[in-house]
Amino acid sequence: MLPEPMDSTTPISGHCSVNVVNVEEDPSFVIPPSPSPTTIKASTSHESPRSPGLRSVDIRKASFGSGKGCVIQSTSGVQYIDCVSKDVLLGHANLKIMETTNQQTLSSNVGLLHTNTAELTRRLVSLLPAPLTACFFVNSYSEANDLALTMAACYTGSEEVICLEKADHGKTSTCLKISRDRSPHFGKCRVLNTVPIPDSYRGKIREGEFPVDDIGWMYSGDVKEVCHNIVSESRKVGAFICEPIIHQAGHISLPDRYLTEVYRCVQSHQGILISDETYSGLGRTGDFTWGFQKYDVIPDIVTIGKGLANGHPLAAVVTSKEIAKKITSIVSYYNFLGDPISCAIALSVLEQLDETKVLENVRKVGKYLLLKLSQFSERFDFVGQVRGQGLSLALDLVHSDSREPNTVAAQFVRQKMFERQVVVELSGFHRSIIGLSPPLVLTMQEAMSVALKMSEVLQEAEKVFGRKRQKSDDENTDDCFPKGHISNHPKRMRR
Amino acid sequence: MLPEPMDSTTPISGHCSVNVVNVEEDPSFVIPPSPSPTTIKASTSHESPRSPGLRSVDIRKASFGSGKGCVIQSTSGVQYIDCVSKDVLLGHANLKIMETTNQQTLSSNVGLLHTNTAELTRRLVSLLPAPLTACFFVNSYSEANDLALTMAACYTGSEEVICLEKADHGKTSTCLKISRDRSPHFGKCRVLNTVPIPDSYRGKIREGEFPVDDIGWMYSGDVKEVCHNIVSESRKVGAFICEPIIHQAGHISLPDRYLTEVYRCVQSHQGILISDETYSGLGRTGDFTWGFQKYDVIPDIVTIGKGLANGHPLAAVVTSKEIAKKITSIVSYYNFLGDPISCAIALSVLEQLDETKVLENVRKVGKYLLLKLSQFSERFDFVGQVRGQGLSLALDLVHSDSREPNTVAAQFVRQKMFERQVVVELSGFHRSIIGLSPPLVLTMQEAMSVALKMSEVLQEAEKVFGRKRQKSDDENTDDCFPKGHISNHPKRMRR
Repeated sequence: MLPEPMDSTTPISGHCSVNVVNVEEDPSFVIPPSPSPTTIKASTSHESPRSPGLRSVDIRKASFGSGKGCVIQSTSGVQYIDCVSKDVLLGHANLKIMETTNQQTLSSNVGLLHTNTAELTRRLVSLLPAPLTACFFVNSYSEANDLALTMAACYTGSEEVICLEKADHGKTSTCLKISRDRSPHFGKCRVLNTVPIPDSYRGKIREGEFPVDDIGWMYSGDVKEVCHNIVSESRKVGAFICEPIIHQAGHISLPDRYLTEVYRCVQSHQGILISDETYSGLGRTGDFTWGFQKYDVIPDIVTIGKGLANGHPLAAVVTSKEIAKKITSIVSYYNFLGDPISCAIALSVLEQLDETKVLENVRKVGKYLLLKLSQFSERFDFVGQVRGQGLSLALDLVHSDSREPNTVAAQFVRQKMFERQVVVELSGFHRSIIGLSPPLVLTMQEAMSVALKMSEVLQEAEKVFGRKRQKSDDENTDDCFPKGHISNHPKRMRR
Repeated sequence: MLPEPMDSTTPISGHCSVNVVNVEEDPSFVIPPSPSPTTIKASTSHESPRSPGLRSVDIRKASFGSGKGCVIQSTSGVQYIDCVSKDVLLGHANLKIMETTNQQTLSSNVGLLHTNTAELTRRLVSLLPAPLTACFFVNSYSEANDLALTMAACYTGSEEVICLEKADHGKTSTCLKISRDRSPHFGKCRVLNTVPIPDSYRGKIREGEFPVDDIGWMYSGDVKEVCHNIVSESRKVGAFICEPIIHQAGHISLPDRYLTEVYRCVQSHQGILISDETYSGLGRTGDFTWGFQKYDVIPDIVTIGKGLANGHPLAAVVTSKEIAKKITSIVSYYNFLGDPISCAIALSVLEQLDETKVLENVRKVGKYLLLKLSQFSERFDFVGQVRGQGLSLALDLVHSDSREPNTVAAQFVRQKMFERQVVVELSGFHRSIIGLSPPLVLTMQEAMSVALKMSEVLQEAEKVFGRKRQKSDDENTDDCFPKGHISNHPKRMRR
């Protein structure tokens, strides 16, 4: 006898309304055979080809079978530019990785050390500053952040966590408790102290209202206040965790001076600093290997997501020997060796990041896309801030002449982009932000295609979501891009 | 400024004293090149060949590079029979799986449905009884059990968990709190109610002292008492979680009637029943696909470990549509799609389990090994109960003429087996139990070799750990196996 389910909670995420896989009732589970991947070639021409009837495909019902580079193919044979596979750093069907995979014969780490684990540790540690020399391998960013929080709690003896509101650090029950999706259902065991996201576009301290150089420092006051409160109540600071680019909350880069100030404060209270590099690590920004390096700080624990193995289930936690010793006195190290195949793939990823011109590509293509997309915030009144670093890009959609999140417009744009064979993501607490996080190997031609199609879609969206306004000369020309002024600081461009 | 670490806790597990990987200080991280896997062929002859100098290799410092079937090869080129890779159901370097892997071109699920996920769901659901039709894919047994507990808490509105003492359900912080390794460091947020393991060998209710048929029913009284206490304090029963074969605590099979009684009680209190099939699922017992089937019960949630994908990072949670709906109203279903490559491997695993004679092999080889090993409990006074089902086998080592766990003897036996090229595991809270959990494709020849080498090692161990006793005629013969009586109920054989 099972009880009736409790009242359904309002879904937090736009995804939530989708039913779970239920083969008994869902006729969509009759899967057509997957076309041969060798036939894949994405359309990147400016003709914006659309298959007849393609418009009727709902992105939420799409199913994919194969891919190559930044192009993925649906089971019905349509090819799309993939701007959502943030973990597939080096693209789908990467030849070197496929060769590597095929050479591996050991299917588990047999609870003992595998050569790949040892070699990967050596490579990874060489990419991080001292004293980050102890590596633990797990299977996902959820497990990585969960382990990092456990490490911090073990080391400090305090479960007090300071984290940013609306951030996403994973799906284990502990991660959910400190994450965007947290809800009363998950309880509040871990002592949680949230601080506002240092969002200079929509937050309480905004660019334009305060000096740009002081915004990070001003936001850091929230963390200082929390630390002060914890200590004044005779409690103890445990850990501070955040992403250098807050991905799920809308690709928000931390303002300058924020991390420097926060780290200084938390360290002075003997707290542990965790940098969640799931999204910002391994070249996403184009400039640095890790997101925290931009801010001239060194965390105590770094967590690395599935990008480490090009999307395969491998994640890592790197910390100091001192912190590592504490956790291994309680949990066996042999639980954290990673599986040999994923470790081999990770070695190939690090080698390719090092030897090929991937980071140069991220800088070049990312800069181009940001310039192109930034123009839309001047051209369309429902496009708010356009922001980004490297190949992390976002268009913040708003209700005209405000900064109110425009969820419906974002869903419209995502679906229309899908119909034009580009898959983009929705982010932000209200899922009102169009995000682009393609593999780092996105070509210039693909980027041009994405920009063009975005322009077409936004024009279409304007008829529904834009305030009626006088057309400028620019918009009457055949060129779908306005010839207006391009800001010298595109990532700070606002309407 | 970081604080000094707190006083080191006594390691709970024998593994714990091993330092984490630290490439700066550990000279053992100079890895020799891995030999070609094609040269691998394990010695299964009765000559027990040993490389000169092999004895000096400490199992804790061994490193492995390749494998084939049930044989793994160390980086120094020595081949071992692998009796620990419980998740590598179909053996290392399984050809069909390697072919499957190589055909996959999509490196992540791009947050949308992949054909492999849909097909795997259909196959998996067909192996489970109604109403278990909703599948969620995660990366590890830790994530699976973590998600199952979250599901139960969401559905019942209660975080009260009833679990067995000393069980192991994973390494996320929540799993640690309900697991064998739990410690004060992890806090006690989740309301935990532990009951004793229904261990008829070393527990409070033992075979020989009580009627065998009543032992399970008697142990179920502990759960009934906990449920009664929860309700009488106006709290609410949340979930009961256990493994049908309690692996880490020493390969203990639940006694008959235990689960039937426990399930009836927990269901009457509207609690959720979770069967952790990480170890017992997918053919380990030889008789059933799932461990719970032996007891004629149907759980509300089944968790499946990495065996699903032959050791690759894929795990699953299967539940009813009703329970699934509750969790997907809070967390996006798209987080639980699995990666396409692991899903493809899982499809191959299920196909091979279905079409080949793997389960028949488990029954045949498992029965033979159990018979052979069972004789040691009569022959050596430091070998207590020998128990098992299918290819889950354990020798419980004790201090002579008692049931006190003999940790030192177990470590000795494990190391000596390693020197004879067989890798076995240590289990039990005191790590005093020698466990065998080989891939399900262990051949009869390999099993014969394992039994022979175990006999040799136990003879060697007897000189150190056995009580001096008169030799029987059997032991004076050349045949290293005694010719004594073989019990008709080997799995119940006791000293």
